[in-house]
Amino acid sequence: MPIRTAQEYVDSLRGRKLKVYLFGELVAEPVDHPVIRPSINAVAETYRLAEEEPELASAQSALSKQRVNRFLHVTESADDVVMQNRMQRRLGQRTGTCFQRCVGMDAINALYSTTFDIDQAHATRYHERLRDFIEFVQTENFVVGGAMTDVKGDRSKAPHEQADPDLFVRVVERRDDGVVIRGAKAHQTGCINSHWLLVMPTMRLGAADKDYAISVAVPVDQPGITYIYGRQSCDSRALEAGAIDQGNAQFGGQEALIVLDDVFVPRSHIFMDGETEFAASLVERFTAYHRRSYVCKTGLGDVLIGAAATIADYNGASKASHVKDKLVEMAHLNETIYGAGIAASHESKRTSAGNYQCDDMLANVCKHNVTRFPYELSRIAQDLAGGLMVTLPSDQEFESKVTGPILRKYLATRPDVSVDNRRRVLRLIENMTLGRNAVGYLTESMHGAGSPQAQRIQIQRLMNLEEKKRMAKKLAGVDETGEPPKT
Amino acid sequence: MPIRTAQEYVDSLRGRKLKVYLFGELVAEPVDHPVIRPSINAVAETYRLAEEEPELASAQSALSKQRVNRFLHVTESADDVVMQNRMQRRLGQRTGTCFQRCVGMDAINALYSTTFDIDQAHATRYHERLRDFIEFVQTENFVVGGAMTDVKGDRSKAPHEQADPDLFVRVVERRDDGVVIRGAKAHQTGCINSHWLLVMPTMRLGAADKDYAISVAVPVDQPGITYIYGRQSCDSRALEAGAIDQGNAQFGGQEALIVLDDVFVPRSHIFMDGETEFAASLVERFTAYHRRSYVCKTGLGDVLIGAAATIADYNGASKASHVKDKLVEMAHLNETIYGAGIAASHESKRTSAGNYQCDDMLANVCKHNVTRFPYELSRIAQDLAGGLMVTLPSDQEFESKVTGPILRKYLATRPDVSVDNRRRVLRLIENMTLGRNAVGYLTESMHGAGSPQAQRIQIQRLMNLEEKKRMAKKLAGVDETGEPPKT
Amino acid sequence: MPIRTAQEYVDSLRGRKLKVYLFGELVAEPVDHPVIRPSINAVAETYRLAEEEPELASAQSALSKQRVNRFLHVTESADDVVMQNRMQRRLGQRTGTCFQRCVGMDAINALYSTTFDIDQAHATRYHERLRDFIEFVQTENFVVGGAMTDVKGDRSKAPHEQADPDLFVRVVERRDDGVVIRGAKAHQTGCINSHWLLVMPTMRLGAADKDYAISVAVPVDQPGITYIYGRQSCDSRALEAGAIDQGNAQFGGQEALIVLDDVFVPRSHIFMDGETEFAASLVERFTAYHRRSYVCKTGLGDVLIGAAATIADYNGASKASHVKDKLVEMAHLNETIYGAGIAASHESKRTSAGNYQCDDMLANVCKHNVTRFPYELSRIAQDLAGGLMVTLPSDQEFESKVTGPILRKYLATRPDVSVDNRRRVLRLIENMTLGRNAVGYLTESMHGAGSPQAQRIQIQRLMNLEEKKRMAKKLAGVDETGEPPKT
Amino acid sequence: MPIRTAQEYVDSLRGRKLKVYLFGELVAEPVDHPVIRPSINAVAETYRLAEEEPELASAQSALSKQRVNRFLHVTESADDVVMQNRMQRRLGQRTGTCFQRCVGMDAINALYSTTFDIDQAHATRYHERLRDFIEFVQTENFVVGGAMTDVKGDRSKAPHEQADPDLFVRVVERRDDGVVIRGAKAHQTGCINSHWLLVMPTMRLGAADKDYAISVAVPVDQPGITYIYGRQSCDSRALEAGAIDQGNAQFGGQEALIVLDDVFVPRSHIFMDGETEFAASLVERFTAYHRRSYVCKTGLGDVLIGAAATIADYNGASKASHVKDKLVEMAHLNETIYGAGIAASHESKRTSAGNYQCDDMLANVCKHNVTRFPYELSRIAQDLAGGLMVTLPSDQEFESKVTGPILRKYLATRPDVSVDNRRRVLRLIENMTLGRNAVGYLTESMHGAGSPQAQRIQIQRLMNLEEKKRMAKKLAGVDETGEPPKT
Repeated sequence: MPIRTAQEYVDSLRGRKLKVYLFGELVAEPVDHPVIRPSINAVAETYRLAEEEPELASAQSALSKQRVNRFLHVTESADDVVMQNRMQRRLGQRTGTCFQRCVGMDAINALYSTTFDIDQAHATRYHERLRDFIEFVQTENFVVGGAMTDVKGDRSKAPHEQADPDLFVRVVERRDDGVVIRGAKAHQTGCINSHWLLVMPTMRLGAADKDYAISVAVPVDQPGITYIYGRQSCDSRALEAGAIDQGNAQFGGQEALIVLDDVFVPRSHIFMDGETEFAASLVERFTAYHRRSYVCKTGLGDVLIGAAATIADYNGASKASHVKDKLVEMAHLNETIYGAGIAASHESKRTSAGNYQCDDMLANVCKHNVTRFPYELSRIAQDLAGGLMVTLPSDQEFESKVTGPILRKYLATRPDVSVDNRRRVLRLIENMTLGRNAVGYLTESMHGAGSPQAQRIQIQRLMNLEEKKRMAKKLAGVDETGEPPKT
Repeated sequence: MPIRTAQEYVDSLRGRKLKVYLFGELVAEPVDHPVIRPSINAVAETYRLAEEEPELASAQSALSKQRVNRFLHVTESADDVVMQNRMQRRLGQRTGTCFQRCVGMDAINALYSTTFDIDQAHATRYHERLRDFIEFVQTENFVVGGAMTDVKGDRSKAPHEQADPDLFVRVVERRDDGVVIRGAKAHQTGCINSHWLLVMPTMRLGAADKDYAISVAVPVDQPGITYIYGRQSCDSRALEAGAIDQGNAQFGGQEALIVLDDVFVPRSHIFMDGETEFAASLVERFTAYHRRSYVCKTGLGDVLIGAAATIADYNGASKASHVKDKLVEMAHLNETIYGAGIAASHESKRTSAGNYQCDDMLANVCKHNVTRFPYELSRIAQDLAGGLMVTLPSDQEFESKVTGPILRKYLATRPDVSVDNRRRVLRLIENMTLGRNAVGYLTESMHGAGSPQAQRIQIQRLMNLEEKKRMAKKLAGVDETGEPPKT
Repeated sequence: MPIRTAQEYVDSLRGRKLKVYLFGELVAEPVDHPVIRPSINAVAETYRLAEEEPELASAQSALSKQRVNRFLHVTESADDVVMQNRMQRRLGQRTGTCFQRCVGMDAINALYSTTFDIDQAHATRYHERLRDFIEFVQTENFVVGGAMTDVKGDRSKAPHEQADPDLFVRVVERRDDGVVIRGAKAHQTGCINSHWLLVMPTMRLGAADKDYAISVAVPVDQPGITYIYGRQSCDSRALEAGAIDQGNAQFGGQEALIVLDDVFVPRSHIFMDGETEFAASLVERFTAYHRRSYVCKTGLGDVLIGAAATIADYNGASKASHVKDKLVEMAHLNETIYGAGIAASHESKRTSAGNYQCDDMLANVCKHNVTRFPYELSRIAQDLAGGLMVTLPSDQEFESKVTGPILRKYLATRPDVSVDNRRRVLRLIENMTLGRNAVGYLTESMHGAGSPQAQRIQIQRLMNLEEKKRMAKKLAGVDETGEPPKT
Repeated sequence: MPIRTAQEYVDSLRGRKLKVYLFGELVAEPVDHPVIRPSINAVAETYRLAEEEPELASAQSALSKQRVNRFLHVTESADDVVMQNRMQRRLGQRTGTCFQRCVGMDAINALYSTTFDIDQAHATRYHERLRDFIEFVQTENFVVGGAMTDVKGDRSKAPHEQADPDLFVRVVERRDDGVVIRGAKAHQTGCINSHWLLVMPTMRLGAADKDYAISVAVPVDQPGITYIYGRQSCDSRALEAGAIDQGNAQFGGQEALIVLDDVFVPRSHIFMDGETEFAASLVERFTAYHRRSYVCKTGLGDVLIGAAATIADYNGASKASHVKDKLVEMAHLNETIYGAGIAASHESKRTSAGNYQCDDMLANVCKHNVTRFPYELSRIAQDLAGGLMVTLPSDQEFESKVTGPILRKYLATRPDVSVDNRRRVLRLIENMTLGRNAVGYLTESMHGAGSPQAQRIQIQRLMNLEEKKRMAKKLAGVDETGEPPKT
């Protein structure tokens, strides 16, 4: 029976016997682990939004002829691509963190057109298989995670040149009924909270990398898979008594290392196997989608602006002109990100396969601004928060009969402002600028979907410099037709 | 007979007996004045583009049932608004300057919905009159300029409070057949190159400013109008022999002070008269359109990037990594402007009147970036140009038999690069960053459609801070329901 | 017997029976508390440096006629002020954190001239008392902390107007032999690691705030004082087994709330009592010194640049031009801070009391850059670090027999780079940009010695705008002498 | 008889029969040419300042045993280096432009130590000759210009590899009594306004470039020298009637191409001839001095801030919080430049020759900020100026009986503000941000003393990255001693 609600989603994750390691120990049940649970709540919010605002977070699928969660939808128009951004911003606002489903959504759409192109070139059947798979997950309403980033070993060497051939995920055995793969994928967002993973190659491949040109779907609980949980700033506050010091106790992100130790994949779930020349376009299409998916961070930006405005209220500073001006600057930067992202989506074009692909240049520009502006928003938020954000005693101190009353006496500001509310907001700003969700709001804004230099290289490719030179030369009256220039 | 070509447009401007003053003298025929002509050429390019790329620069009008120049088109879809931006960028690329028709286009569209709203409120007939006027100019294919910015006198006082009541344009006489207006409009882009002017109030008005709530159409050559030409940096180079030192000899912008000395306007051309409460929304709609129209500057940005890349080629520096990186940064900033602008257009909504109005927040964000990034593009372009840009001797020196050969000997770089081409490109960069077109690319990017603070105020209004606070408080677990906070 | 070594300093802190609360509990012995100890180590480094580089970290005192730790030295020349900066940068390099002694050093010097001025005005004896106190601490080689920042309550009200009069530290009883004070000081750097505290008013006071114009010295272990420890990002990692995840296990900062619950101060240790009109100049002199003391952050900047360069090496990316360029940018920003700071010190002027006071404008400019550039250095460091910095599993995972070998296999890069060294450097960058020392490197760079707006107000006061207008008017040929301007 | 006053200086330039070409014509008398004269006035101001503030602009020379103009002084202490900066800022404030004497001052000091070092290495007599020359110019009180920047031809080739060997200045003939040199120096600041030129090589040279390792002094009016004047933005406004449109009618900068067509130099004026290995250190010392000399631009910054504040006054906007904040930002950036520059001077070290050399890192940091901040100050100044700055009609219009009264009616603001004063200030801002002095304030701030990338390369050399890595590794606990890392 398909998953229908946020609660059913959470229930669906129980009892899967995943091999998840965290703080050196095998986790008995991830759903109940206090460090992991907030990340599950964040994914659950994608279901809840689909219940509460179906126009926003679900779509009618021509593929499976039913209304499906938008994260599983193959885009059928530019407007579908735009709606992804609207949904992403809304979820950022609701969770204040990474809700982890964009990789899968973007992978589905990138594979959709790439499998079509491979089939055209090689008379293969990948596209049909993928459509079947998508129809299946749409019907079951599963979470599909993407698994792209290999651990990469020595960055100066190709996959097949590595000292250890497993440093990129590869086919180690080909059987009649399928393939066996081995390797590891790093920084995998939300993988433990998914039902299926779409494995894809991580970069342009050469002919000698044939065994690395592999794309498959695997169930998250497939034997042979181990998950090693990445630790985040302040993660262990979730293990403490009291929720306030977490800042955002309910929601968090998740990244883990996925180790694939000889995992079998049946033929029906293979979407690329050896077509090295299509690795680059798969990656390029995926990153184009995904760089614009970082519009989600404007939802987090909305929360941070709100938090900064609230703390200014509590501090009695909200009427100061410099405070108002800083909030405007935050909004301006946040909307600048949004503008480029949603523009990339609006400018989507139909692919040969029939789904819609966003504008590559604007997607890169969006992401490149994401590698800059959230840091500046954080800086301003810390400015407005005041120093107390990082010198506030622990929640236990406020609960203590000895120090609690002292703190409530001395941290009082205006009579209508609760000290506890004040520290709740301070802890939220700490959470987003230094703590657990700073990981997502800052560092992953930097590196997710490619580090800044990757965007610059792509902008360079797309900027059409020769055309721009031609324009300039025409206006300048440059004459390069001449025989040996007498100058 | 309607104007059909760029040449016919130029011809249509001849013999109009305008009272235009420049350098202290009445200009005999603006079309033939070397300082003015480049600005006419820039407007002519809007006709040429409509000839060469009709899909881009013209549109089928439901109003006049014919294909019309896009600058005269009432938007019938969000896509129509988007197409304006595409056309604007293209014209920026073709001219490297301000082509002066956006004010009129945006005024037509802002008045279209505002007159509709006034009629709804007051049972007036403005909308029908305006439709008639638009149909007329579409049919004749005229250039319509906008005239909004009053000279304003003492900024701390309302129009009716000024020492001299003429410091805002006002009705000085009401007659059965129309009104007589007096006042002046400053910084009027392309006014002399237009056929008609749409006069509009410049800001929010109070009930006591009734005589200032006036919007009309007047022919540019109406008796009683005087034009005093604004001087631009390096304008007088157009009076020198030789074209190279102008940088962009063919195209330039134009701003003038329009003095309305008791100009009569018949009833049929009055679109607002006394409805002070609609001044604010007219201005707001106009500025929303117009702030996003600054996407034109990305066309200029394309030219400047091309010029910077060309001079790097000529200097033999184009392979240096820092040079490539600077060009990427220029492109990134330029596309960031474009992203916000075109997003504002894509997000247009239908008005009650039926035309489409762009997104206000994104339009403001676009313009606000325009007050920053072209300055940074200019700075980088000057970096890539090298110091010679400002120490290059005059064209006369290169033409001189004495100094010409010396300069050609000593300013030689690579044997395949012409010294003259090198200085052409240097002069183009000078033109756009210090000279005549720097006026449009920089200073008017700063102040056109409202100075930076105007955008910040609008962003503040639109940023929905209370909603953002609510989001933050929810995630922080703030509880403000409590009775007297025990803290 | 005076303290002579770092070890003797640490020993001197033992057994003092301080009332320190951390995580809701009374700390038995701060010296042995794993969260507190790194902050003690950082202070100890100020002793170690004096041993190892006496020219840098000690000075010959004319006051006590002996060589004293530079943190206790009354400046006798501009060069003495400069040497403070050199020492600060060096200690920043050695500890990568806040070494906590600058507040005391700057307080001693600010009080030195202020007490002299009060005595001149009021025929009091504060200056002599202060000299005695300084001679005493120089001889004993004690750590003197400063205690300035009151908790402030409702920011819109003066001290005497607060609902609770204790929200600023005040005299609650005057006795023949001294005074009794009550209140609390927030964000007090290194207070627990000090031997004495110099209490000072926090801001400009009015005549009605007489009881708040109090400056005294109190021993840290005086009865009636309670310390409530501020928690820092990732502080509890110090409680975990394994040192690597701390990033910088040896050194950390410290801030606590000091609660003064009716603390008696004998007459000999009172340096201001009721002279409200000198509160402003005391604060201004202190902040001038202290804003330039933030040159210490360039020492942390050096460490962060080094860490970023090291991780680039380990990732095999150090030859990429964009990597080199980012390191240069980091150095440029870091040295820009240093330039303004050391310039402020070089430009010191002799006070009436005979010590040297730094330049106020340049000190403010230095600090204002400190509120910006460390954030940008952090952003670039995170760029160079790569995403692994925030997805790296915990140290326990690397120690585990199950997951340790898997991680070492898959996180290998080049054969000559140790995975453990790689994560050590990643954890150091995390420590400085998100973790425990990010508190000092970022948030306290923002708010310490005054938040950004405080510097802007001071720059506004000092910028001498009238003089600048005069210069401009002269060059522009402005003539304002005229009688009623006819224009 | 030595020059004693500004007037005597101007007189000393008359009748020299220089071959100066401007606008294609040989200039009869540069002193009387309206385009050239403002640049002479700027140099004259260096004499006037020495008269009015001798402590600031002159110094007692140990070399010539007399009080000499500071521009001719060999630094005898760090304080002497600092005083150069104070004088430079003051002259920037007095002229609002480049006063052209820093190159000579910095060249004298760089050659002073370099000739000493060459003599040590080669037993030559250059240092003594240079001392004689300096004593001579000190006594005569002459202006000494520097001539360093060669035209350089193909940037990818060394001097001796160029197609035309004259593209770097070189010795074409060696005679018993001296040498004959040929070539050209580009962008030579103030050369025509000097009495003597110090010719120096422009960059690091190889052994094969022996003929290019030449440094000499030549009189400006030596036969064989031709000067071709560089044109500046808006230069021809100086040829118009009326002074207001010039913005700063009195002062301007000057750059020219110096063509050396077989110029003879006697032995006594040769300071380097063939010692190629010293070219690099001469250039490096000179640029270190000269990059910090750009502190002069903070004097221009003061003027621009003053102009921006004045126009805000005139517009009635000076109390708006955003206006005040923008002025503070301008001051902050301006003082940041000053801080790094004066710090470089304060940190000067004694050379082997006995004069003082500034800190290289801080000098580069100063200049690098000069390539950024004046552009931002200009942007803000244009923001505060308003759009009228670039749409203001010409001075002739204001003088016209027809348009003058109209303009004075419509450009009136507050009754106490003169329209003419308003446009004077607007024209000054135009002058500094787009016009004649924008050349010096912006573009030459970018390229003078080396383009931005030159500073970055030097910062990279000086940043001591290995030391920083060592610091980071120590704090991170990195252990690289291990044998083959088991990781």
